[in-house]
Amino acid sequence: MDEQEKLELENSTPTYGVSSELVDFIKEALEAGDFSRVQEIIEPLHAADVADLITNLDSDLLEKFVTVLNKPIDPEILAHLEDQDKEKFLKLVSPDDIAEALASLDSDDVVHVLEDLDKHELKAILRAIPAKNRAMLEEVLNYPEGSAGRLMQREIVCVPTFWTIQEALDFIRESQELPESFYEVYVVDTKHHPIGTVSLDMLLRNDPSSPIAEVKNTITSTIPMSMGQDEVARIFQHYGLVSAPVISPNGRIVGMITVDDIVNVIEEEVEQDIMHLAGVSESDFHEPIFQTAYARSRWLIVTLINTLIAASVISQFQHSIEEKVALSFLMVIVAAMGGNAGMQTVTVTVRALATKELDYAHKGKSIAKEIFVACITSVVFEIILGSLAAVWLKDVYVGIVLGIALICNMLWAGFAGTSLPILVQRLGLDPAISAGPLLTTTTDVLGYAIFLGLATYLLL
Amino acid sequence: MDEQEKLELENSTPTYGVSSELVDFIKEALEAGDFSRVQEIIEPLHAADVADLITNLDSDLLEKFVTVLNKPIDPEILAHLEDQDKEKFLKLVSPDDIAEALASLDSDDVVHVLEDLDKHELKAILRAIPAKNRAMLEEVLNYPEGSAGRLMQREIVCVPTFWTIQEALDFIRESQELPESFYEVYVVDTKHHPIGTVSLDMLLRNDPSSPIAEVKNTITSTIPMSMGQDEVARIFQHYGLVSAPVISPNGRIVGMITVDDIVNVIEEEVEQDIMHLAGVSESDFHEPIFQTAYARSRWLIVTLINTLIAASVISQFQHSIEEKVALSFLMVIVAAMGGNAGMQTVTVTVRALATKELDYAHKGKSIAKEIFVACITSVVFEIILGSLAAVWLKDVYVGIVLGIALICNMLWAGFAGTSLPILVQRLGLDPAISAGPLLTTTTDVLGYAIFLGLATYLLL
Repeated sequence: MDEQEKLELENSTPTYGVSSELVDFIKEALEAGDFSRVQEIIEPLHAADVADLITNLDSDLLEKFVTVLNKPIDPEILAHLEDQDKEKFLKLVSPDDIAEALASLDSDDVVHVLEDLDKHELKAILRAIPAKNRAMLEEVLNYPEGSAGRLMQREIVCVPTFWTIQEALDFIRESQELPESFYEVYVVDTKHHPIGTVSLDMLLRNDPSSPIAEVKNTITSTIPMSMGQDEVARIFQHYGLVSAPVISPNGRIVGMITVDDIVNVIEEEVEQDIMHLAGVSESDFHEPIFQTAYARSRWLIVTLINTLIAASVISQFQHSIEEKVALSFLMVIVAAMGGNAGMQTVTVTVRALATKELDYAHKGKSIAKEIFVACITSVVFEIILGSLAAVWLKDVYVGIVLGIALICNMLWAGFAGTSLPILVQRLGLDPAISAGPLLTTTTDVLGYAIFLGLATYLLL
Repeated sequence: MDEQEKLELENSTPTYGVSSELVDFIKEALEAGDFSRVQEIIEPLHAADVADLITNLDSDLLEKFVTVLNKPIDPEILAHLEDQDKEKFLKLVSPDDIAEALASLDSDDVVHVLEDLDKHELKAILRAIPAKNRAMLEEVLNYPEGSAGRLMQREIVCVPTFWTIQEALDFIRESQELPESFYEVYVVDTKHHPIGTVSLDMLLRNDPSSPIAEVKNTITSTIPMSMGQDEVARIFQHYGLVSAPVISPNGRIVGMITVDDIVNVIEEEVEQDIMHLAGVSESDFHEPIFQTAYARSRWLIVTLINTLIAASVISQFQHSIEEKVALSFLMVIVAAMGGNAGMQTVTVTVRALATKELDYAHKGKSIAKEIFVACITSVVFEIILGSLAAVWLKDVYVGIVLGIALICNMLWAGFAGTSLPILVQRLGLDPAISAGPLLTTTTDVLGYAIFLGLATYLLL
């Protein structure tokens, strides 16, 4: 695999998306005003790749690029634009052209295009959309971001339970209001409650005269509109779903979520979780400088307070350090090793909490495991570091004190690294954000206090 | 959203999977030997939930549980088992029963069940599988783990380009060897090269007498068998694919990958990336204690070397610290702030490299951005901390030296936090693993050296 990975790295032509050569070529052609050449090149491109091109164009080149795009604008291009490019791009297109493009997208993609736009612009576009669709969109945009109601598409295919397969096939062939693409139809009762699903391949491979009820699968999971998108993603993963019906509070089917939307949610959620551990957000890469500086500073202030507490602990032992200056560099080792070991534990625990692997019954077990791991690693490092220090300073007692402090701090790191995130979550906070700084505060303070304290009372 | 999230947290009944009450109930029933009751309860459960139950049973209860399961064993249960449970479970079932269950699974799921088994067990099961399927499985198991060849399923539906829709529909209805589920059929030329896809809903909504060639979509991406699964996942995400054909080196279609397999790959890849930053692996949570201790120690040794280098830098300034003991706690602040700011930058950069957002042209831009952000944040913290130190120690010059050292270190952190991961990747190494420790070594060493050096020459 290593060999192969290297090969892939060396291979500079991307296997998807647009190459840097193509971007440069388009830029030059736009600057030279050679619009027909640009049109020729983008004609066969996938909408996702055109969106990629847009990402790479500055606003003056983008203005030219928009005039080159065929009208009506391919709606799939809009659906593939990233947030930061969307606004840039939509400003250059008239609301009527946007509304026209949106008409052929499924509602979830339309919502994806419209969300996060500024109010003024959103209003202008909504005004250009036919009244019937507008009302529906406004309703969906009212669901909180990150909820199933926001993620779902309204376009679904429902069939009554008493139909035959043939009737369903005829309905699909004749209906004018089908989703852009779909993989399953939902079987509903008279109250429009979903009671089963039939995948399209089941419709195709079974005898057309059989009743739908005979080939339908029971519904594994119905998604309430208010469910959070991370929960929805977990359900899709757990059951390996392709699509799932979304229901209103009274149980009626109102839409569906498909697995291709879930792919993005999963990436977002996992990223969020772990990037929070380092105090950055997953959108950080695209944010403007001042926003980034502000967001990061907030977290740095937390770590600063942590460091200040640690510094003031050290300052309590000034006299000991004056007497034995070697303490000043040995103390750094104790604190750092505790912090590093603790962050390993926190990272594992935060992930396990997020994926719900760390459930009832498992909690005691995993705390015990972390403490055992800490026992083993701390003893190993105690021996290495204690001996090193004893040899370095030609002082066995310093080595012993360093070793004891190291064991205490790494054991604490193992215990607190598991229990702090659990505790933080029980308090209703996000463990990914707060568990890390909390933990390193304790390992710093404990590390310095135990080592300098022991040294003061045993060595001086 | 916050309100709603809290509500969801408080709600202890899980929205999917098995509740702790159910697990306890099953355990009690198994212990009491009330097998018919257990059978009654698991009868309506989804295979994924039965797999969940298995995760929660100790080996002696599991032995009883296996006797309760209906024969033939539902193959979907096998497909949903996690690695560590799979081995435990398969040991309790006869190879013939396993082979029988596997017969109705698609090849990708069979491979998922069989991979990572010990050689002896794998041989016993393969021997029980019919010769034709066995040869195919052995071939697939030869592809490296994490490659498209491993991820794909061999079962696909291909139709020649000259057929009509009706002919395709008839073929699907009559074929005995269809995949367990599928969403698209592939249009192939006479050499069996894929030249288009037709989604099932397109087959259903178009006139049966039209030629397939008229409704087919061009293929967006063909996946070579040797492609890495992270690359495959990126392609699916980029183009929003539902399935993609996998081709052999000579271009013939040999299988397909579907989006439901990609969901798991994406989670794995994102987790891997960022968990490596903390020196833990994504399987860490389930590994036995000694393995975990070993794996984590390796990374801790790297951070230990880092810390030792930093300690030896400090030891060079022993005399300065003896003269002005306050330096011993102020130096800790400079190093910590540089390390924290740097790790924020490294995390963002590693993610951007993995998602290929950090491409050609973007590199200079993002290094520049990080340096600007570092400028802003370091000046802010310089003022806060410098003043604090000046007031605390009643010594303006100490505050100034602290401030200068802080700015230097945070600027370096911004520059190195972006350029180190890029450099590491260009050397063919994984930036997620090595960039973190490398960076903190530099921020520690620089932090201590600049601060203690400046203090020695300016203050003493």
